[in-house]
Amino acid sequence: MALWDGRFEKSPAQEMVTFGSSLDVDARMWREDIEGSLAHLEVLLAATLVTPEEHATLANGLRQVGEEMASGAFRPGPELEDIHMAVESRLTEIVGPVGGKLHTARSRNDQVATDVRLWLKRRMTGLHEDLVKLVDTMLTTVRAEGQILIPGFTHLQRGQPVLLGHHILAHAWAFHRDAGRVADALVRMNACPLGAGAMAGTPHPIDRHLAAEHLGFAGPVDNAMDAVSARDHAMEAASACAILTVHLSRWAEELVVWSSTEFGLVRLGEGYATGSSIMPQKRNPDAAELVRGKAGRVVGDLMQLLTLVKGLPMAYNRDLQEDRGALFDAVETAVACVQVTTGMVATLEWNAGRYETELSGDFLLATELADHLVMKGVTFREAHHAVGQLVGQLEAQGKNFSGIDLDVLRSHHPSFDEEALHALDPRVAAERRTSFGGTAPGEIERQVERLSDWVRKQQATKGGQ
Amino acid sequence: MALWDGRFEKSPAQEMVTFGSSLDVDARMWREDIEGSLAHLEVLLAATLVTPEEHATLANGLRQVGEEMASGAFRPGPELEDIHMAVESRLTEIVGPVGGKLHTARSRNDQVATDVRLWLKRRMTGLHEDLVKLVDTMLTTVRAEGQILIPGFTHLQRGQPVLLGHHILAHAWAFHRDAGRVADALVRMNACPLGAGAMAGTPHPIDRHLAAEHLGFAGPVDNAMDAVSARDHAMEAASACAILTVHLSRWAEELVVWSSTEFGLVRLGEGYATGSSIMPQKRNPDAAELVRGKAGRVVGDLMQLLTLVKGLPMAYNRDLQEDRGALFDAVETAVACVQVTTGMVATLEWNAGRYETELSGDFLLATELADHLVMKGVTFREAHHAVGQLVGQLEAQGKNFSGIDLDVLRSHHPSFDEEALHALDPRVAAERRTSFGGTAPGEIERQVERLSDWVRKQQATKGGQ
Amino acid sequence: MALWDGRFEKSPAQEMVTFGSSLDVDARMWREDIEGSLAHLEVLLAATLVTPEEHATLANGLRQVGEEMASGAFRPGPELEDIHMAVESRLTEIVGPVGGKLHTARSRNDQVATDVRLWLKRRMTGLHEDLVKLVDTMLTTVRAEGQILIPGFTHLQRGQPVLLGHHILAHAWAFHRDAGRVADALVRMNACPLGAGAMAGTPHPIDRHLAAEHLGFAGPVDNAMDAVSARDHAMEAASACAILTVHLSRWAEELVVWSSTEFGLVRLGEGYATGSSIMPQKRNPDAAELVRGKAGRVVGDLMQLLTLVKGLPMAYNRDLQEDRGALFDAVETAVACVQVTTGMVATLEWNAGRYETELSGDFLLATELADHLVMKGVTFREAHHAVGQLVGQLEAQGKNFSGIDLDVLRSHHPSFDEEALHALDPRVAAERRTSFGGTAPGEIERQVERLSDWVRKQQATKGGQ
Amino acid sequence: MALWDGRFEKSPAQEMVTFGSSLDVDARMWREDIEGSLAHLEVLLAATLVTPEEHATLANGLRQVGEEMASGAFRPGPELEDIHMAVESRLTEIVGPVGGKLHTARSRNDQVATDVRLWLKRRMTGLHEDLVKLVDTMLTTVRAEGQILIPGFTHLQRGQPVLLGHHILAHAWAFHRDAGRVADALVRMNACPLGAGAMAGTPHPIDRHLAAEHLGFAGPVDNAMDAVSARDHAMEAASACAILTVHLSRWAEELVVWSSTEFGLVRLGEGYATGSSIMPQKRNPDAAELVRGKAGRVVGDLMQLLTLVKGLPMAYNRDLQEDRGALFDAVETAVACVQVTTGMVATLEWNAGRYETELSGDFLLATELADHLVMKGVTFREAHHAVGQLVGQLEAQGKNFSGIDLDVLRSHHPSFDEEALHALDPRVAAERRTSFGGTAPGEIERQVERLSDWVRKQQATKGGQ
Repeated sequence: MALWDGRFEKSPAQEMVTFGSSLDVDARMWREDIEGSLAHLEVLLAATLVTPEEHATLANGLRQVGEEMASGAFRPGPELEDIHMAVESRLTEIVGPVGGKLHTARSRNDQVATDVRLWLKRRMTGLHEDLVKLVDTMLTTVRAEGQILIPGFTHLQRGQPVLLGHHILAHAWAFHRDAGRVADALVRMNACPLGAGAMAGTPHPIDRHLAAEHLGFAGPVDNAMDAVSARDHAMEAASACAILTVHLSRWAEELVVWSSTEFGLVRLGEGYATGSSIMPQKRNPDAAELVRGKAGRVVGDLMQLLTLVKGLPMAYNRDLQEDRGALFDAVETAVACVQVTTGMVATLEWNAGRYETELSGDFLLATELADHLVMKGVTFREAHHAVGQLVGQLEAQGKNFSGIDLDVLRSHHPSFDEEALHALDPRVAAERRTSFGGTAPGEIERQVERLSDWVRKQQATKGGQ
Repeated sequence: MALWDGRFEKSPAQEMVTFGSSLDVDARMWREDIEGSLAHLEVLLAATLVTPEEHATLANGLRQVGEEMASGAFRPGPELEDIHMAVESRLTEIVGPVGGKLHTARSRNDQVATDVRLWLKRRMTGLHEDLVKLVDTMLTTVRAEGQILIPGFTHLQRGQPVLLGHHILAHAWAFHRDAGRVADALVRMNACPLGAGAMAGTPHPIDRHLAAEHLGFAGPVDNAMDAVSARDHAMEAASACAILTVHLSRWAEELVVWSSTEFGLVRLGEGYATGSSIMPQKRNPDAAELVRGKAGRVVGDLMQLLTLVKGLPMAYNRDLQEDRGALFDAVETAVACVQVTTGMVATLEWNAGRYETELSGDFLLATELADHLVMKGVTFREAHHAVGQLVGQLEAQGKNFSGIDLDVLRSHHPSFDEEALHALDPRVAAERRTSFGGTAPGEIERQVERLSDWVRKQQATKGGQ
Repeated sequence: MALWDGRFEKSPAQEMVTFGSSLDVDARMWREDIEGSLAHLEVLLAATLVTPEEHATLANGLRQVGEEMASGAFRPGPELEDIHMAVESRLTEIVGPVGGKLHTARSRNDQVATDVRLWLKRRMTGLHEDLVKLVDTMLTTVRAEGQILIPGFTHLQRGQPVLLGHHILAHAWAFHRDAGRVADALVRMNACPLGAGAMAGTPHPIDRHLAAEHLGFAGPVDNAMDAVSARDHAMEAASACAILTVHLSRWAEELVVWSSTEFGLVRLGEGYATGSSIMPQKRNPDAAELVRGKAGRVVGDLMQLLTLVKGLPMAYNRDLQEDRGALFDAVETAVACVQVTTGMVATLEWNAGRYETELSGDFLLATELADHLVMKGVTFREAHHAVGQLVGQLEAQGKNFSGIDLDVLRSHHPSFDEEALHALDPRVAAERRTSFGGTAPGEIERQVERLSDWVRKQQATKGGQ
Repeated sequence: MALWDGRFEKSPAQEMVTFGSSLDVDARMWREDIEGSLAHLEVLLAATLVTPEEHATLANGLRQVGEEMASGAFRPGPELEDIHMAVESRLTEIVGPVGGKLHTARSRNDQVATDVRLWLKRRMTGLHEDLVKLVDTMLTTVRAEGQILIPGFTHLQRGQPVLLGHHILAHAWAFHRDAGRVADALVRMNACPLGAGAMAGTPHPIDRHLAAEHLGFAGPVDNAMDAVSARDHAMEAASACAILTVHLSRWAEELVVWSSTEFGLVRLGEGYATGSSIMPQKRNPDAAELVRGKAGRVVGDLMQLLTLVKGLPMAYNRDLQEDRGALFDAVETAVACVQVTTGMVATLEWNAGRYETELSGDFLLATELADHLVMKGVTFREAHHAVGQLVGQLEAQGKNFSGIDLDVLRSHHPSFDEEALHALDPRVAAERRTSFGGTAPGEIERQVERLSDWVRKQQATKGGQ
């Protein structure tokens, strides 16, 4: 039943009914729709556009619709084109003709825009909390396992020895920035469209600040046409979600590679893996793979939103109905990916000794010898040249640095001394990189401290936001 | 209940259950799953891997599962991770332990790959038929309304007069090529993965050609690893869908612009528009807007698929489970867009006289005068110069070509003669563009004929494909 | 000439030379590369890793390379794989072996990461200024032309009368938020990677805060691996650019539609349009079309970046070299689009009277009559019903609201009074929508004031940033 | 110098000159532009729109422009907006006023459309040849190294033993289908737009078939408006390129993983890798990483094209100028990726013995034991259960299948016999998978044969196409 029924002689074409319906997608906003209507009721009351009695009737009716939705007693059918129409039509069944007063001084355009922002604010706030929790979980891992020695990779080739904590913190900082993007998006979307009408405002003496206040917005959107046609809150939220799931996919890729038999550095906990009935040793890293795959999904959602909005004139066009499917999917997928990653990280089983001995004598220590010479005053290029020759000779002999003695070193450069042999211990090599942000334990500790402060601060302000 | 149950001590983490489930998406393949299993049964029988009695039991069991799915008697719950597991577990309930024989010589990998291709072949075949129907509908419009005079636009500015049939045929040819892309994709995906096993084939003496034949494929996929890990059929199908919905969006845009009050050239039929309770003259072109918006959705689906598959090693990775959501959405959205466009086109109400008089004397006829001079032997540049001066003078006088006489023309160039005045009739201007593919009625007729032949041929072979 | 030359027996394959070169793209960072090296020199000096003499030699050498680049005296050829190698090799030609000292305590990884952030900070700062200027220009237009009466559109159908200022401000607010996104991205990327080394930090006693200070960063990146492998500054910048060009495309679309003969509301200035030698009245809205088209380009750049980074393990992978092409193109295209739009807006020629009389009596005023009744106490639904009947009757008679008298109104509802006739003036209709954010002149003025404050504040702090 | 010069009082705004210029991008089409004009000259001559003398003058002039472009004697400057204008203006300098005759019966729209299709046909034909060569090179590798034993992976976990040839052929078949997509796109774009004019055809009696024939097209485009506004050849070509580079990225990913120290299966040839001055054993798999990264670039190009065209009305809009940057980049990047991959594949250094002994006794052979029991008549589920128990027991004892004897097997299931021990040889396990498409040597040979036939056929018809 559309509002313009009775004017058109023909009903919508059969294929248009599902084509045009958004109920499947926007049904998840029913709570927000009812809250938005309750806030609008307060505005109508303050503007004396409804009487206190009408206000009471309508508010009770709306609450009853909410209870029926929550309990499943009212299930809107496919003939209703969206959740807003569904709520309004059920309300009118309950309260009678006075239900028609609810739509005074608002239109579908500002109503929908308000509901979407309410929904989005909530989910993005939850996403922010989940990101904080993920970082917190990673800090726990760093504290417990951060001293494990691993190769730092470039091109997936062994580059320099690092500590696992250094590596995990690199991801944690990225998630910390992701939380920042989510927070910035939340600030920018925190304005209320309600009362903007179709696009021009209204001649009724309504107080839009009141609606904003009731719904927890910082204030009303400044321009009524912008209020109903802006979609950058959706594009920005999807973009923040795309970047963060891309970040998650990087770590997921590593967990897949690291849990191969060949790398053998980590196993996923049973809750996040699948096994095989006949290969009990097998732990397929499903959670990591799904996270990696779902990053593509969120990227696709973002692309849909950008393509959708590109070239659309003001103010409302029906195309915009399609925004919700992509937006909701992007945010919900991001939330699920963060939560699953958090659980996965918390239950990883590390093979602490995997690289402890294997890296001894490995050529990935060559940089250490060069740095040793540089500290003795040798120029960078001369140092590199000397170490290069040494390594070339060793390789030709089928050896690596294991068991090398000082005489051999000195035969390549006279400035080598005892310290050089010490430098060839991979753990020592990692620990001496004490420059700001280096892989040395002190720097790991400093970062853990700094991120812990941030986590605590976020968790403290969460309630009061 | 996973096959590897009992090995892991812990159950999947709570958040992994929904995260890893694809039942929501792949439930729509239940028919294909049962057909695939029935074909596999024939292969097992021929290889004497099941007895005739076992074959009968399993086949009857599968048919019963199918009936229960169709009637709704069996509704797989969320604890089952996908439709394949759902069908198999219900089968085993029905037939007992012999149900376990069905999975001999196949794995989940080739089973899923087969189901997806079966589903896709069907939907893409339907999409091809829908495209043929769309072109057919457009030819009907061209026959009925093709003579309506309109401006041909460049930069949305009036360029040269054309006939509506010429314009509509430009779109029809694009849809004709879209059908070609769908057909090519169908040929390329027409190979059967069944029997490929996990990725290496099987030591059992199965006849994969038999499975292919039973399922209507041209033959088996040549390489077992390719069979389970290829996803280009999905990317190609989504790509064909993206291009065709982008094509639809171009016409949709025109219908939105042309149905504005300012253009006033067309109105959408009531079945494809929405109205307003208080502005009965209003016809919002919703169907066109939704088609335009949904093009973005299909583009997003394609981007998801490309991003998903990029950089994935052989053979199966759990990421690939995410392919179905995007693929199914792309194809189903494309089908719906084509069908809605067909209905919308069939019910358009053209304002035939909109431009008939308005274009008389319009400066969009200036090219006609220049062409006239060129035909009299004047060089292109000289002709343009003369006409340019004429138009400049007229514009300065606040006039256009209306009522211009031969003397004025000759004062700008002596080669103008009576024919020039005739050339200034916009309908004549359109009708004399008789070069191959020009807007002249004969060329429109030729194209209608050629496309009609194609439509008839497609409709004739449809059954026999 | 690569650093590892002489080790490999074979040279790079011919097709690898261009395939692997990024010089074409990163040559535009030469200034940043030299500045980064100069800052690194200060760090080396402070850490006594170079002597004051070496410092002077190297600093002078670097400045000379800069002058040669600026004057074109040094043009790196295609055999140099990137700008960093080009600068270093030229430096070594100039200063001799001491040139080799410059690379102490840094690696290519942190060097490139620093250069990119320096470049990006500058361009994004410029983009922010350009956005402020665009908004400022739009405010000028609103002040000058904001009172022009136009239809507010939904579905490109006339909805309600609004003032042009209201419409333009809707876009201005979007650009205001775009500037906010650019500013937020600037804050987040404002950390210096220099000194992070390959990914593990360095054992040399360098002061990374010093480098950060010299280069105008807020401080060093906290984690050395994050410093070299993070690409979210690129993805976030491209995302901000994509959203803002999509915003520009919306207005560009309107300018294209509005400058059609049919709409006739605006003409582009000659500097932003193309004409035709024989149709002097023609002004193709090229600038608007190019802006609309280039939005797609920036969206493509963003897509490339997201796909590129997805699934990449730590720390550096050669894939990442591809990030600059997309990032630079996104930012430079966005800058150009904003600048061209600013110029285009400043020179628009408005047809002020286009709708002044045409909207009189237009059915887009129906809402006014309904609102009139609601203010008299009639319920919304009853009001709509009455007006709907009135309009239906008028339409059947081939009339609109022009010249309607009170008796006719009253025959449809007794609550109509003289005010109703007044409400039918479209300009009055716009002016009475005085609710916060409505189209009334006072609200336009309020917004102009608020945005002007913002512009002034941005322009004041620009220098001091 | 634009054709409409002298009409506008003002020049283009400064920032519009570069913004609107496409010369940077379309300069690479200069050969096609000249060829197109030469073909058009034949048409004009046949239609007696130029005299034989004029024809000779113009043809000679065009050839001279071509020579000047080839030699670099003529370098169009930035004031010329595109290559078409550049060629025409140089021609007019050479031949004088008669140069103006060349543009009779054509417009910039059909001229550009023709040039792009000519360029695209050539590059796509080359891409097809390159794909054939890549497959040919892979067949050579399969013949030489195909017997190397490796684990077949799922989830990057060892699944079943396969032969390297089986794995490589899985990629080869994908490239074979990619070649098919390129070929299909070539057929569909093989129609000539020349003579379509601005969008409406022309009143001049030209023979468009003649132009098509001269330029090697199958015929003229059927509809003049379609001829100038269609862009699906660009979208389809970019889509084929995106899918094929995504395919290349899958293999590139494997080569990166396989060349890690941990996997150690392959090393890239020196021509396709980079080394390190101090770690001579290091071979960074740069070529593979670049190919993987560039796949994202082509995906971005496709995204740009789809977003660009979406929602554009007929016929020409200036937005479309942006198509060439993305199209050219997509095709040229795809060509480079295929060529580099071919060279990289040809020079891979395989570590043939990497897995030969390591897989002996590995649990990835568990499936073999289960299959053995199934062949003895045991049901699939019972077989799996027995083997599962066996493996569980062995794992608890810290053993794998190495050195297991028949008694132990029989203690888990009485149907085990001597053959079972034989089945535990990983090479035997691979060789017995003789089902169609399985990893057995005979199946590898069959596929090599089939693909070799295809390669030969393509190479034979190449010239005659």
